[in-house]
Amino acid sequence: MKKRPLILVTNDDGITAPGLRTLISVMNTIGDVVVVAPDSPQSAMGHAITINSTLFLEKVKIDDGPQTEYSCSGTPADCVKLGVNEILGKKPDICVSGINHGSNSSINVIYSGTMSAALEAGIEGVPAIGFSLLNYSWGAKFEACKSFVKTITENALKEGIPKGLVLNVNIPDLPEKDIKGIKVCRQARASWKEEFDKRTNPMGREYYWLTGAFVNEDHGQDTDEWALANNYISVVPVQYDLTAHHFIQDLNTWNLND
Amino acid sequence: MKKRPLILVTNDDGITAPGLRTLISVMNTIGDVVVVAPDSPQSAMGHAITINSTLFLEKVKIDDGPQTEYSCSGTPADCVKLGVNEILGKKPDICVSGINHGSNSSINVIYSGTMSAALEAGIEGVPAIGFSLLNYSWGAKFEACKSFVKTITENALKEGIPKGLVLNVNIPDLPEKDIKGIKVCRQARASWKEEFDKRTNPMGREYYWLTGAFVNEDHGQDTDEWALANNYISVVPVQYDLTAHHFIQDLNTWNLND
Repeated sequence: MKKRPLILVTNDDGITAPGLRTLISVMNTIGDVVVVAPDSPQSAMGHAITINSTLFLEKVKIDDGPQTEYSCSGTPADCVKLGVNEILGKKPDICVSGINHGSNSSINVIYSGTMSAALEAGIEGVPAIGFSLLNYSWGAKFEACKSFVKTITENALKEGIPKGLVLNVNIPDLPEKDIKGIKVCRQARASWKEEFDKRTNPMGREYYWLTGAFVNEDHGQDTDEWALANNYISVVPVQYDLTAHHFIQDLNTWNLND
Repeated sequence: MKKRPLILVTNDDGITAPGLRTLISVMNTIGDVVVVAPDSPQSAMGHAITINSTLFLEKVKIDDGPQTEYSCSGTPADCVKLGVNEILGKKPDICVSGINHGSNSSINVIYSGTMSAALEAGIEGVPAIGFSLLNYSWGAKFEACKSFVKTITENALKEGIPKGLVLNVNIPDLPEKDIKGIKVCRQARASWKEEFDKRTNPMGREYYWLTGAFVNEDHGQDTDEWALANNYISVVPVQYDLTAHHFIQDLNTWNLND
């Protein structure tokens, strides 16, 4: 019998989040699971790491599953670094992050703690996938995600994810029967139009809440936004070499050394 | 006479950082300067934004320059969002971030608050450049950077930075006469080999400090690491569409819908 894969599981909503508990339950059917997740929610942390503060790690037991679990005082990227280098002391066969409560499609990948954990694993040479459900609420239902999460993870373990990239999976918030399938996509060109809600605090000082609307300017039918709007699960390969190679030639025509 | 450009200046080391003060002094020679910078250091914040907390903004006067300045309680990305949408109410001609105390070359771009601010500006449709000096200390000398920062910014204003990307500029910590010139580069394939320094606190609880060594496995002479090691300033065009387009074809051969 082939050895069961070693799976590192993390997220950014914190170790008690229902999305993480669902992901753990699926991974327990695939391999041996070690969880290292933040002890509190870390959404919109981007790729933050903790360099000027200490990190605490605590072995915990949250449910009756066979997994080993640690809660960590740091960010999702910290969890992966600690998981790989300190707890496992070797590279797991795969790292999965999520299932995030809320979308990480399109430009949201760059603000996402869930995807930051997956990218950190990729940088460490560990194949990685981030999963997100398009429902921000704590009470979101993750049941319909399970078979798809399992299929994608098993495919990744079988086919291998090449060095230099990780997968970003977003799942529409629908009953399983209404999900049309899984589509490989590119990141849609979309952005947030910010609105700041300006208020005055009881001491008379002004402050702001960040709000805004997501605007998709990209009409392509090969994008994650199109797939999700049409009831498909989107899978986008995401890279962490950020070089805009196509612009290097043009940039070399600038007069930088005159 | 052509209208002076409107320049938004920010950083991640905080509004009093010597690197920011140098950047402001250079920008004052080019255009009209508005500064929105964090009220405290925000290094290694990645692309964090503040969504679950309030943001405070305060008009300040730090030196005798003609610039307008605001300190902000948020992250570098928050500063840009507030700067563009709330303070300016329109897109500036360019946003410059830095000069960071310490390198943001290679994979460090992904952890960098300095580059996160530049990327956020890019996402908002504002041409942007992040500048970093390869010296982490608060007392770093930024004088040698000045003429290069001016040249690169003026070129960017003249030539235009295309939508979808921003520039990542790293400057070796050398006297001006020893800097050989400015090189257009790609991001080197390098990473951090983490070491966690494990300690016990006075209450008997274990904790960790993140430490590590930067390892460059990339022998190319077209990389930012090569340029910096050979006394050149590196300029890397950086994009925020993270799609690994080259892998989409392969990914479509996986059995995701069987």
